[in-house]
Amino acid sequence: MIKAIILGFGNVGQHLYHAFSKTSKIDVIQIYNRSQINFSEGFQTNFTTEITQLKEADIYIIAVPDDTIKVLSETLSFKNKLVVHTSGSVPISYLSDNNKKGVFYPLQTFSKNAEVDFKTIPICIEANNKEDLESLKQLGLLISENVQEINSKEREQLHLSAVFVNNFVNYLYQVGSDLLMDNSLSFDLLKPLIIETAKKLESLNPENSQTGPAKRNDLKTIENHLHLLEGSPYKELYHKLTISIQEKYNGKKL
Amino acid sequence: MIKAIILGFGNVGQHLYHAFSKTSKIDVIQIYNRSQINFSEGFQTNFTTEITQLKEADIYIIAVPDDTIKVLSETLSFKNKLVVHTSGSVPISYLSDNNKKGVFYPLQTFSKNAEVDFKTIPICIEANNKEDLESLKQLGLLISENVQEINSKEREQLHLSAVFVNNFVNYLYQVGSDLLMDNSLSFDLLKPLIIETAKKLESLNPENSQTGPAKRNDLKTIENHLHLLEGSPYKELYHKLTISIQEKYNGKKL
Repeated sequence: MIKAIILGFGNVGQHLYHAFSKTSKIDVIQIYNRSQINFSEGFQTNFTTEITQLKEADIYIIAVPDDTIKVLSETLSFKNKLVVHTSGSVPISYLSDNNKKGVFYPLQTFSKNAEVDFKTIPICIEANNKEDLESLKQLGLLISENVQEINSKEREQLHLSAVFVNNFVNYLYQVGSDLLMDNSLSFDLLKPLIIETAKKLESLNPENSQTGPAKRNDLKTIENHLHLLEGSPYKELYHKLTISIQEKYNGKKL
Repeated sequence: MIKAIILGFGNVGQHLYHAFSKTSKIDVIQIYNRSQINFSEGFQTNFTTEITQLKEADIYIIAVPDDTIKVLSETLSFKNKLVVHTSGSVPISYLSDNNKKGVFYPLQTFSKNAEVDFKTIPICIEANNKEDLESLKQLGLLISENVQEINSKEREQLHLSAVFVNNFVNYLYQVGSDLLMDNSLSFDLLKPLIIETAKKLESLNPENSQTGPAKRNDLKTIENHLHLLEGSPYKELYHKLTISIQEKYNGKKL
């Protein structure tokens, strides 16, 4: 039985808590959060807003905003325990030297009200010695089939890539939605296309999946689209993405 | 039984053919293509490369590149038949006046070797009279549960939106893949995130799904990402998308 304490109960903390709750081999013995939380009735896990009141556990999992990880880790009053953070973009070295350091980064997007299945989520782990790495691997395998050793430099690149395929992609969904709304059309029309675009990667790489006016250098359609976007905040974005695609696939320097 | 002829046997033509083949209520009696096609053994449907040799059918479905639709429709030697095209960006008016005009636009991305399930694909139909519209609706409902009446102006906007959520999104997958490859990391790491980002739209709209450094105005992470992208062709794209997200959600003019 692994005794764990989760520090920070935002999106990541809550999703980890629920994932851990599904296995009998992990006991989340306490949750810390800076501010009080309104738990639903029947919630049993010990909760504290006092960082000095932390219990003794096998692992302390920090799931607070990136810019508060360092300070929080330095505030912990105990020593030589395994303390990990869950961030994609913060190096392991930011954690305080008072404790054994690690990273337990689930590479996924977490939102309130959207349950996720951890089984396929890559859990990217890092530690400064073999023993801690093994502990993190064991913990990860209890909730996911996909545990990967990723160092801080690699994780930084991974996080940057994730910004492109998640944050920026979601923003393009927003653009599609806005363009349809402006014309009283339902965003639902695009949803099958959006799902298929993602699913296609199971059988084709992005290069082979790429279609559209920019890829085939269809200047007439591109011109018409830019005309339709006259006055729209998205015109420049269309232009920039089109040029980038033309450069990538057609070797064009425009 | 609806007798159909498909003109043009590229991606769209082939996927439509396979979808039609699954119902006994549509008989594709002939396929026309400008150039010869290497059919697999046992392929039974009549095939011609001679536009003058077309048989008599209830509907002629043009699935050729956008810029050849007009000319092909003018080449047809018969009159007063229902002739439709399958393009998102070509107005119905481009079809020749010699025949009854229509549009039968399946809003999906089609690639070789990636089978698609037509059931949920929006089939966007347009015609110049009620009778033809009804015919197209019946045809559409034989392969999809989602047939929508969309006029040329709406379809143009729909196609533009589809470019954002398919072509541009796929390109961002390409960027993610390139960034990982440059660091000897596998693109497979991002696939669960990509699927979840798309699936999330079932329960959340894009605005509520938006996360990341640009949305939360995390300048430190943005700066670090731009630093990581120094010398990369994707730096400008990161910058442009970040600014656009900040403007959209945080009302920033940078």
